[in-house]
Amino acid sequence: MWCRRLFKSKYQTTDIVEALTKGIAVYETIRTYNNKPFALKEHYNRLCKSLSYLKIEPPKLTEFEELIYGNLSERIRIVYVYDGNLLSYVFRESTENYFISHVKIDFTIVRRADPMSMPPDLKSLGRPDIYLARLTKGDNYDVIMLGTKGQVCEGTFSNVFLIFKNKIVTPSLDSGILDGITRMHVLNFLREKGFNVEERIVEPYELFYADELFLTHTSRGIVPVDEIGKRKLETELGKELSTGFEEYIKCLL
Amino acid sequence: MWCRRLFKSKYQTTDIVEALTKGIAVYETIRTYNNKPFALKEHYNRLCKSLSYLKIEPPKLTEFEELIYGNLSERIRIVYVYDGNLLSYVFRESTENYFISHVKIDFTIVRRADPMSMPPDLKSLGRPDIYLARLTKGDNYDVIMLGTKGQVCEGTFSNVFLIFKNKIVTPSLDSGILDGITRMHVLNFLREKGFNVEERIVEPYELFYADELFLTHTSRGIVPVDEIGKRKLETELGKELSTGFEEYIKCLL
Amino acid sequence: MWCRRLFKSKYQTTDIVEALTKGIAVYETIRTYNNKPFALKEHYNRLCKSLSYLKIEPPKLTEFEELIYGNLSERIRIVYVYDGNLLSYVFRESTENYFISHVKIDFTIVRRADPMSMPPDLKSLGRPDIYLARLTKGDNYDVIMLGTKGQVCEGTFSNVFLIFKNKIVTPSLDSGILDGITRMHVLNFLREKGFNVEERIVEPYELFYADELFLTHTSRGIVPVDEIGKRKLETELGKELSTGFEEYIKCLL
Amino acid sequence: MWCRRLFKSKYQTTDIVEALTKGIAVYETIRTYNNKPFALKEHYNRLCKSLSYLKIEPPKLTEFEELIYGNLSERIRIVYVYDGNLLSYVFRESTENYFISHVKIDFTIVRRADPMSMPPDLKSLGRPDIYLARLTKGDNYDVIMLGTKGQVCEGTFSNVFLIFKNKIVTPSLDSGILDGITRMHVLNFLREKGFNVEERIVEPYELFYADELFLTHTSRGIVPVDEIGKRKLETELGKELSTGFEEYIKCLL
Repeated sequence: MWCRRLFKSKYQTTDIVEALTKGIAVYETIRTYNNKPFALKEHYNRLCKSLSYLKIEPPKLTEFEELIYGNLSERIRIVYVYDGNLLSYVFRESTENYFISHVKIDFTIVRRADPMSMPPDLKSLGRPDIYLARLTKGDNYDVIMLGTKGQVCEGTFSNVFLIFKNKIVTPSLDSGILDGITRMHVLNFLREKGFNVEERIVEPYELFYADELFLTHTSRGIVPVDEIGKRKLETELGKELSTGFEEYIKCLL
Repeated sequence: MWCRRLFKSKYQTTDIVEALTKGIAVYETIRTYNNKPFALKEHYNRLCKSLSYLKIEPPKLTEFEELIYGNLSERIRIVYVYDGNLLSYVFRESTENYFISHVKIDFTIVRRADPMSMPPDLKSLGRPDIYLARLTKGDNYDVIMLGTKGQVCEGTFSNVFLIFKNKIVTPSLDSGILDGITRMHVLNFLREKGFNVEERIVEPYELFYADELFLTHTSRGIVPVDEIGKRKLETELGKELSTGFEEYIKCLL
Repeated sequence: MWCRRLFKSKYQTTDIVEALTKGIAVYETIRTYNNKPFALKEHYNRLCKSLSYLKIEPPKLTEFEELIYGNLSERIRIVYVYDGNLLSYVFRESTENYFISHVKIDFTIVRRADPMSMPPDLKSLGRPDIYLARLTKGDNYDVIMLGTKGQVCEGTFSNVFLIFKNKIVTPSLDSGILDGITRMHVLNFLREKGFNVEERIVEPYELFYADELFLTHTSRGIVPVDEIGKRKLETELGKELSTGFEEYIKCLL
Repeated sequence: MWCRRLFKSKYQTTDIVEALTKGIAVYETIRTYNNKPFALKEHYNRLCKSLSYLKIEPPKLTEFEELIYGNLSERIRIVYVYDGNLLSYVFRESTENYFISHVKIDFTIVRRADPMSMPPDLKSLGRPDIYLARLTKGDNYDVIMLGTKGQVCEGTFSNVFLIFKNKIVTPSLDSGILDGITRMHVLNFLREKGFNVEERIVEPYELFYADELFLTHTSRGIVPVDEIGKRKLETELGKELSTGFEEYIKCLL
């Protein structure tokens, strides 16, 4: 699935294996455009939040930056693993076949873990809920996970937005979702463009009442959805927004 | 916390790191008595169940046995990690300062992940619910996790039993708990001894109505509880059962 | 909404008001065809179950029969109210404008009360969940209530069935629904006709994947659904089943 | 259980029975001291809130006052029932054997209905959760209901408070409880007295860690708890607060 993989660390790999086995690991995936990492500070802040749940002292911002600038690639995955000491390592990756033409999504039977069990913005390795949901993807681009009360949460690697005639709706953070960095930039973008945007609890049947749907994620920004389950969808506004968002992002770099 | 650690694998450690980062890992911890692994077959079966949730073809029993007999120690942790291929590795460990004199427990605010999100008997590495609960242990031997409906589940590494005048009660598997191998042997032991044993949904307040409490886990068998929260407990029957169970286990080897 | 109302009781109405205010009331609504009450015994049994949850001694079957045969009408609502003593009263009703041509349904935001709070087959007066759900009906024939986990339960006065290419699906009793008497007769009818029928947990999005939907309730039997939310539905098989079920019922009288 | 009952209404009792059977009813119970109704305005406001959930136009304050002043007694229960029209009636009651010497409480297995199903401050007649919980009281003064997540809610007619060394804790409104009028007055009283008071989610085991417990309800104000389950409790501070609150209330009249 990935081309050009590169693992980098200043730590012993056996120490890393041991820490991954006995301890816990959090990570961030960062996208670069023309060798410029995007939203580095937001990723650092989210990493700090993940570590704070685990009562782990975060690395300094300068250390985090060094790791990234020392390992530039299209996508960089930075992992911090803790088992008494905090070890870090990096995978250099490329963005890849996310670029398919017909985007189909569906719901998955696997529910996202409840915030009472795990903070939804604790971005840790090996969360079985996410892994199990991915197993149910089949030929879908992504599958939508519901929360323990049945509310819409998010895809396994994306956030979901619903376009209605006079508003755009997306699950609120208190739905129990990850505070997606692309999601936040898309919200800013839509509000700047003058759209009426609602963040709130979304019921699954609302996805069938929406005029259009789109996903958002780091590697591709805004992704219009062509089909949900057996229902074909319009993508007119979605395509427009997708292009507009690319421009918007370039200006932020 | 652990003395004499030994990592063993026939696979490249960088491949293992990569698989642990991108994939998912399940494990079993096996106790040996006089170089005889205890309940090897049960551990193998539970491993297969964990892998089946992940749609991963399990290793053969003979491979599993080779791994164990090739790495005998007091405690052996066997990890299988999957990211396209199934890699295995082993840590040789010793049982250690579980042997403290005054056993105090309490409840933790962290809820066990719901079965709708993760099967409770998927024994995977890096489950944040368990890790977060351990962070709240303080000076307790273990802390009891509740389920999403508030029912008693289990400790972070132990199962809990309640002794009442005429019966012994423990949370049923449908409470959302791991199917503990020591738990199962203790149930058999108690029933053979003629106790009236109930497996059922247990409410947290029942732990304060019980005459005695005990925990069960692989490294120490039956562990009588001296104190829950601020409440001191009798341990008379618990101590008797603890000794009886050690005898019982020796006969099973 | 109702024509020809007739209240009958051998008890003082002030005593009934007092019992309804301080106590609790359960009821059954029975349909007659040519002055023959339909499924009288099943209604009696369900009434007994409702009363058993409340630890109330049920009336004798003969008393129940007398009440019905003494007050025959198209629809008879029999209420038992308890506040130390068990009082009964009857309303004679007619079936009425359930007979509309275009049947539209939708989901309601109001969740059905959880079985941990109230047994779903405790058919008591004044359940606020049902009442609140009805307030959200608008121009829909009925609205579908979800359970506390987001699973499909039932309408406010009907059960829901999904027709797929090779099977017919309806929420199982453990979804937290009333054990509808018409629902049960429809299940028998479908199985006798050779359909593959599944009773199981149903997710709300499945209603949009079904080829057809139909409701079932006492006053009209099988009711094909023309529209859910904004989605038009085929009703071909539904109409056929509706007619077939009428014949089936007549044979049971 | 009640002495001197008096039913009063300007409406036909058969109309009331019909409305109670087909519609929905909300109520308030008001205490008088020396023929002065206590907290009449707060009860009126809560009644309006109950009716607002049901989309029912509330009566005027003056009508509500007339009903009360026209039917003064130690306890007045005012019921509004709606089935197209809003009918009202009153029961005049006396406070009675709430005055027992040894107050014992326990938990009940019946969970309070979730706010997703019914607003906890919709004070309607015939809520089965409350009724079923009362059936489990046995020789307890009241039983504590938990919410659907296992959090402590309230008794079937009382609110619960926990006294710790340096603070007093009670379930917050977002625990899913009724906004008790006596509860609110007790909170004001405690804060005026300089106590550190926390309203928050309370776990059931905390009731066993508290130094003292007390209940609050309209008919008796603050009621110290002598025993929970099998555990005896101190009541020293509780008794002091109970007396202090009586004085406080008298000044408010």
